[in-house]
Amino acid sequence: MPIEEERTVVPDVPRGPLCAYRSKAQFNWKDFRLVLEDKELVKIKYDIWRRLESEPLFAPVTATLSVDQQKERAARQVNRIADLELAPPEIYSKPYKYRVRYLMSINEALHAVCPSLSVKIALGVGLFTNSLLAMGTERHQDTYNKAWNREIITCLAITEVSHGSNTKRCRTTATYDPSTQDFEAAKCWVGNLGKTASMALLFAILYTADGENHGLQGFLVPIRDPKTLLPYPGVTVGDIGEKIGLNGIDNGFVMFNNYRIPRENLLNRTGDVTPEGVYESTFSEPGKILGAVLESFSAGRLGIMQESSNTLSHAAVIAVRYAALRKQFGTDRNGPEQSIIEYQLHQWRIFPYLAAACVLKVSVFAMTEIYLETVQKSQAESNGFELLTQIVSEIHALVSSSKPLVTWTARDAIQESREACGGHGYLRAANLGELRNNHDPSCTYEGDNNVLGQQASNWLIRQWKNAKVESPV
Amino acid sequence: MPIEEERTVVPDVPRGPLCAYRSKAQFNWKDFRLVLEDKELVKIKYDIWRRLESEPLFAPVTATLSVDQQKERAARQVNRIADLELAPPEIYSKPYKYRVRYLMSINEALHAVCPSLSVKIALGVGLFTNSLLAMGTERHQDTYNKAWNREIITCLAITEVSHGSNTKRCRTTATYDPSTQDFEAAKCWVGNLGKTASMALLFAILYTADGENHGLQGFLVPIRDPKTLLPYPGVTVGDIGEKIGLNGIDNGFVMFNNYRIPRENLLNRTGDVTPEGVYESTFSEPGKILGAVLESFSAGRLGIMQESSNTLSHAAVIAVRYAALRKQFGTDRNGPEQSIIEYQLHQWRIFPYLAAACVLKVSVFAMTEIYLETVQKSQAESNGFELLTQIVSEIHALVSSSKPLVTWTARDAIQESREACGGHGYLRAANLGELRNNHDPSCTYEGDNNVLGQQASNWLIRQWKNAKVESPV
Repeated sequence: MPIEEERTVVPDVPRGPLCAYRSKAQFNWKDFRLVLEDKELVKIKYDIWRRLESEPLFAPVTATLSVDQQKERAARQVNRIADLELAPPEIYSKPYKYRVRYLMSINEALHAVCPSLSVKIALGVGLFTNSLLAMGTERHQDTYNKAWNREIITCLAITEVSHGSNTKRCRTTATYDPSTQDFEAAKCWVGNLGKTASMALLFAILYTADGENHGLQGFLVPIRDPKTLLPYPGVTVGDIGEKIGLNGIDNGFVMFNNYRIPRENLLNRTGDVTPEGVYESTFSEPGKILGAVLESFSAGRLGIMQESSNTLSHAAVIAVRYAALRKQFGTDRNGPEQSIIEYQLHQWRIFPYLAAACVLKVSVFAMTEIYLETVQKSQAESNGFELLTQIVSEIHALVSSSKPLVTWTARDAIQESREACGGHGYLRAANLGELRNNHDPSCTYEGDNNVLGQQASNWLIRQWKNAKVESPV
Repeated sequence: MPIEEERTVVPDVPRGPLCAYRSKAQFNWKDFRLVLEDKELVKIKYDIWRRLESEPLFAPVTATLSVDQQKERAARQVNRIADLELAPPEIYSKPYKYRVRYLMSINEALHAVCPSLSVKIALGVGLFTNSLLAMGTERHQDTYNKAWNREIITCLAITEVSHGSNTKRCRTTATYDPSTQDFEAAKCWVGNLGKTASMALLFAILYTADGENHGLQGFLVPIRDPKTLLPYPGVTVGDIGEKIGLNGIDNGFVMFNNYRIPRENLLNRTGDVTPEGVYESTFSEPGKILGAVLESFSAGRLGIMQESSNTLSHAAVIAVRYAALRKQFGTDRNGPEQSIIEYQLHQWRIFPYLAAACVLKVSVFAMTEIYLETVQKSQAESNGFELLTQIVSEIHALVSSSKPLVTWTARDAIQESREACGGHGYLRAANLGELRNNHDPSCTYEGDNNVLGQQASNWLIRQWKNAKVESPV
């Protein structure tokens, strides 16, 4: 495609006071934009933003809504997004990598508009269906379809009050009762959708009637009637309350009191319980396999990094634009004042984050490519699942070291940008407060940054040990 | 006083799960508390907290109020505080240092309960009356009394849309008209009290009828009728909108259209305009004197440092207590889990902030002592005002280097504490989000931290130059 035509993918910026600085650029900024991001993906995003501009439900709000209003708005947006069919049906017949890239770009576009919405969809649709695909079998296809078509709102219930990082020690148990062919489960905490979810993909320790512990397993657990949203008997469910940000998401708690679910609700891709109550694993090391399955969460971490690098750009651009327009002091006491972007101190404060925004966008893009190609390759090969488990620890180490880097850099960029915009940066209208409050949990969820850093270090030490063993000395 | 009796100043902590760790201490924590802060001042604070505990208007809110509700609440609190007479009348006959220390402790106590309230009082009562005292004369006594007794709500109007740090270039002018003995003033921005203030202490460039510019001067400018709170004709005033935090304070804008104020409203301690329109200064260098007067703002910066060091303690204590109670993983995979405070990584993350909280509390206390003693000495001597102007640049340099240190350390402590408390730290109930949003402007107001840092460096370079000139080499 000729370069002139490629540039039309990126719309012009409105003319205004920034033109003076923009006209000094020694390169075409649209070309630069297309270096940072793939042209096709840029096009997907702008198309979505154009469509959402005419949707009142997605118009910016000028004052912080109440927590309940934020939740209602996000829930309505999820439904409206389903109607809008942002993903054209034909992408589902395309190869894995193409399809996931497309969906990731939709997520990025939505995240830039409404962070709560994108997280709500990512957890309730993306993460749920991906996990179901990885852990379930054909008997869970109906639930998969309903979640994908937004007929049911879903959530992923892993974390408990006392167990976040240490999932292996979670206390929720599911005991199989051969007489009724049901499981019993007890007490769990914080899924995603504590006000509206009708179905949870819940992790619990599986016990068979003989008292044997079969480790953490996934279960489909109906929470509420999808029509009335009233909880089923035996389920106590509610919202955990106001958060610092992302209040559009209704994080909830759920407790089970002798609550029974059918045997078929066990996600049985790697092992199953027979009607008689015998646990049968299709793999020799089901624990390891579960690790691989949980690795589908790497996609979630990549999504967070994509969102974070966008947030970083967002903050840096606010600070740079403000610095170009804001004048204060000057070389001559009584002469014209000077844009603060001209001051070395100010450049030293904000330019590194502008550079980081570019570097991290490119590197997160590259890392996503590697991840998607690996998964695609594993799907194409007969021993694909095993292939994936072999390299899963390397991908995990890469993602575990990168997610802290990207999210912490974005965190610091937002703060420096807020301060660099002075009092005006403290106005809600500057958007830096919203960016900070909504970005904040990225340092914690899908793996606490410090814990992830240790996992990456652990992997590195293992490599060193292996290399030492193999070396002839 | 025997040590046992001294300890009664600090109330006991409630018994609970933290007792196990507390009982391991090798020192008495109450004694340590009294090392960090003067016993008398600790007593003042606890007395205030005890009194406020029975006041419904000061009860903690469990969900974020709307911006308007926050403003209404803070305004009601200001009135209620006046009724409560937290400062006993006898302190006003005590020496300067004693009196100001007492008032500073009240401010610290209120800040810990309601940050918006303390800022509202600090700006509308403390800063206003202090500035009036420094810049005004006996003809402004009536306004002083009304502000002190909360009969009028006041604000300090310095900043403009385009001028924050560079106050010398502010565009608001006041021109004296000898025919009516009035000033005219035009356009100003952001005082403190944009919804309720009836009187502003406003800084504007003074022009006499001959067109001569007499620099930045202070004026008392009536804004609204104190009974109806309706703005006076010629005054356009309103709220600047939602902020990231401190929404209890109604930051406002005000514009003047040929608005006239009487000649006597000029704050004339350092210079005055005669009825005929001649400017007469009582000092040879009124510009320098204004600098000294503005130095009364050092008290404001010290107040910010006191508040910041308290905020830092507050955040560090939340993180340390959580770390003592929160258990996750352990040395034995299936054995008991271990408090996260036992992990080196976690200690490395939060203990430095605990240490910083102690160090900064002590150093801010010491710096406040030096400041108050200096001012008290200058008041006692006949050439006191000149004495003060001589050392003002040294105090300014001290405060300008310390305010960034304290406020940035507090900022980082809040963030690290938020992350160290994981998802629970992201709940509003943990209070870390409120601390962050309310503390944030400390890095900007009363002198942007980066600008203050440069002022301190500037002073240091001057010392070096002077030393070089004086040295025999």
